[in-house]
Amino acid sequence: MTKSITFRTAKEQDLPRIVAMLSDDVLGRQRERNEHPLPESYLKAFHAITTDPNNELIIACIKNDIIGVMQITFTPYITHQGGWRATIEGVRTDASTRNKGVGTELIHWAIKRAEERKCHLVQLTTDKQRPDALRFYEKLGFKATHEGLKLKL
Amino acid sequence: MTKSITFRTAKEQDLPRIVAMLSDDVLGRQRERNEHPLPESYLKAFHAITTDPNNELIIACIKNDIIGVMQITFTPYITHQGGWRATIEGVRTDASTRNKGVGTELIHWAIKRAEERKCHLVQLTTDKQRPDALRFYEKLGFKATHEGLKLKL
Repeated sequence: MTKSITFRTAKEQDLPRIVAMLSDDVLGRQRERNEHPLPESYLKAFHAITTDPNNELIIACIKNDIIGVMQITFTPYITHQGGWRATIEGVRTDASTRNKGVGTELIHWAIKRAEERKCHLVQLTTDKQRPDALRFYEKLGFKATHEGLKLKL
Repeated sequence: MTKSITFRTAKEQDLPRIVAMLSDDVLGRQRERNEHPLPESYLKAFHAITTDPNNELIIACIKNDIIGVMQITFTPYITHQGGWRATIEGVRTDASTRNKGVGTELIHWAIKRAEERKCHLVQLTTDKQRPDALRFYEKLGFKATHEGLKLKL
């Protein structure tokens, strides 16, 4: 099945489907607003992301169906001799296709893209409430060397 | 002492001092090149950071002495209803001023700046080899809710 997956940059008309996927999750359902029409804040963020050369909102599709989403941010740092990093965030796959390799394909795609962008590191944080996600990323070669700290404003 | 600390955006001529601070550390010394002249990669990263409206390289000074540095990245996400986040990275204070509140002042400054930029979250990762850093951030209100995963390319 995973052979037929294609990847592309998200378009504005994909946004309701993206928000629906982000909401269809124990944590997502508490913090998203999957409404019609979508709250304006989603559109504003979409435009901020897609007009920024260092941010990419990527969707995975099978034929015309959107089955996965993630955001990749490329950041230049002074540390590591001025090295660029790729940060992956907001990874979600459609519930119906879960455990069929879509997530793996998404992350492999992100790693390849990070290499193209000459990053020396790919990074992400995963909620400690998602032990399956931690195992998933470790299987892909990520090391949980850091604590991920958050401060809500 | 901390009352006389000022904060400003870093200038190109501050770069050797910044790299010296980043290098003066158990982990930093293994990965930085504190040479004269500085490797070109530091200058390239400096210009990529300072020309990007979503990245700020901030230094803390006492009079004309640079005693601290950090980078703040502002990122729009679709998640959390299209919320912006501030990510703090590369925090370092001068060895001679350590444990005198400079680090606390830096992070307080970053939090205030994140509020100005309408972020809903301030985040950072800290190496599990730095237990003191973890305690420092927790004391400032950060919660270690996430695992910080890294994949070297």
